[in-house]
Amino acid sequence: MEYGLLAEVKRGGRVESRHSGCAVVVDTEGNVVWSLGDAERFLFPRSTVKAFLALELVASGAADRLGLGNDALALACASHGGEEIHTRLAASMLERVGHTETVLECGAHWPSYEPAARAWAAQGHSVACCLQNTCSGKHAGMVCLACDQGIDPAGYTDPDHEIQRRVTSVLEQVTAAPHRKENRGIDGCSLPTYAIPFRSLALGLARFGTGTGLEPFLAQASSRLRRAVAEHPFMVAGTDRYDTAIMERFGERAFVKMGAEGIMVAALPEEGLGIVVKAEDGAARAAEVFLTALLKRFGKHSLCRTEADELFLEDWMHRTYVNWRGIEVGSIYAVRP
Amino acid sequence: MEYGLLAEVKRGGRVESRHSGCAVVVDTEGNVVWSLGDAERFLFPRSTVKAFLALELVASGAADRLGLGNDALALACASHGGEEIHTRLAASMLERVGHTETVLECGAHWPSYEPAARAWAAQGHSVACCLQNTCSGKHAGMVCLACDQGIDPAGYTDPDHEIQRRVTSVLEQVTAAPHRKENRGIDGCSLPTYAIPFRSLALGLARFGTGTGLEPFLAQASSRLRRAVAEHPFMVAGTDRYDTAIMERFGERAFVKMGAEGIMVAALPEEGLGIVVKAEDGAARAAEVFLTALLKRFGKHSLCRTEADELFLEDWMHRTYVNWRGIEVGSIYAVRP
Repeated sequence: MEYGLLAEVKRGGRVESRHSGCAVVVDTEGNVVWSLGDAERFLFPRSTVKAFLALELVASGAADRLGLGNDALALACASHGGEEIHTRLAASMLERVGHTETVLECGAHWPSYEPAARAWAAQGHSVACCLQNTCSGKHAGMVCLACDQGIDPAGYTDPDHEIQRRVTSVLEQVTAAPHRKENRGIDGCSLPTYAIPFRSLALGLARFGTGTGLEPFLAQASSRLRRAVAEHPFMVAGTDRYDTAIMERFGERAFVKMGAEGIMVAALPEEGLGIVVKAEDGAARAAEVFLTALLKRFGKHSLCRTEADELFLEDWMHRTYVNWRGIEVGSIYAVRP
Repeated sequence: MEYGLLAEVKRGGRVESRHSGCAVVVDTEGNVVWSLGDAERFLFPRSTVKAFLALELVASGAADRLGLGNDALALACASHGGEEIHTRLAASMLERVGHTETVLECGAHWPSYEPAARAWAAQGHSVACCLQNTCSGKHAGMVCLACDQGIDPAGYTDPDHEIQRRVTSVLEQVTAAPHRKENRGIDGCSLPTYAIPFRSLALGLARFGTGTGLEPFLAQASSRLRRAVAEHPFMVAGTDRYDTAIMERFGERAFVKMGAEGIMVAALPEEGLGIVVKAEDGAARAAEVFLTALLKRFGKHSLCRTEADELFLEDWMHRTYVNWRGIEVGSIYAVRP
């Protein structure tokens, strides 16, 4: 079977929509502990590898030399909502290396968190700025790395730029998958994204979560980034966002990250597992509920310590939809893995 | 086969996401001319039946007595973007019967067309209004009908309200499908939505497009509404919207309407056909490209009169995605039916 059912959407007691997809749970040796669909299929990890891309910023010593706090490191791993707290922090990262948003090559878009977009418009702005791009933290981190290393940041999104060569080398070490030109696509923020197998991405997460199988400098950097996102989960996403909600609850016990086109990944450090879910159709809503179901099943020792923990996860596995008058009209729920 | 492939999404030369779904093409007798998946499956038509729901407003004579123009009739069939031209017109419909937006039971949400939401915020508003609800035209039409008929509009969204009884009776006549309580769900705008078979919805569209099989008063009302939306396609959706683009191009030769959860329907009056597409996962992007492919195949006499017509449809069957810096990063294209 190429893929299976992840979630159903109900209205008026009937199934209105269905989401299929692939998912894999892998240990630190890369063994497939559980899978739905083919674990060797390729996917573009998109934003799910942002934490891996930030490892070099820490491992090189640049983060410490520049005095970047854990909030900034969390933002470097983020797909944030463009809220003011995110854009200010991205600007302050660039300030530390003498730059402004004009150095960013992510392009500008209005904050994905709509109230933030409206607030920006209410301030009289008619165009968005690059700092509001959901990837501005990652880009700011790469500019910081370049400047610390005496590399001209201009063109840092080019796959052949020294910064891309370095961070791509880290991706290869963490995932143990070659990142070849023929597997390359371009992401929404103009950075390259390399297609790799589901199993490789999940292995990367298991390693990132534990340090097992990584060179000591990468294991230490992983530990630092895990602490950073656990301390500042709001910086990784924002208001009303899944990643933030899960990490606010569980701290260092779960690392969770979304990626475009319906991807959700997680590391469960205490279980030594990495998890990847992709909705075949690209729907985030399906990936969220199904990842939660996997967190409940495979994180039962580390996440479900109390009944409240279980109820918290149950609540994220089964979301109720209310309409504009607050009337309950339907729901989405994970098919139990 | 319960459903089949509608569309693929590519990035970097690879398929990144896939959309499956059901589709059916039906003639005015209800014969299935073509189908993907089971034509007898049930779906909630959601906003795709708005034109059917507006028939009674015309057929009862209310529209003419109240002096509603074709722009207002188009808005009564709309899922609009909440742009100023839409909200003003909805307000003016209510004015004709001595009401304001407070009578509306659709609930308020910010305009779905984001620049309109930002413009509203820039004017100093911190909350949305009911007129901006994408369904406000449909609701205003029902309030107009009630007032013209001497019926108190209060509670008009209740399935047992006289207005709902009347418009539901029209739905049954047009689709030839019973609309029973056990098949009822609640829509985003609080109106009931009744699950019916794909084939019944497509039959309704074939009849709406031709008048064939309808009582004369409904056939005449259908003709009037088709002319109204063809004259005012912007009122049916808005800026950058599929429905508007297709109807701006083809006028009365194609009636097209979206519905939530990935539904797209069409009537091809000159071909005597009704078409329904639903992406299994609820994705509008898939339903749009696949409906276009069906329009090209089944509207070949009425829509594809010139090479430019063909190229126009080809363009809507294969959409290119560019990122925030204008770089082409991928595409979505219909699987040819």
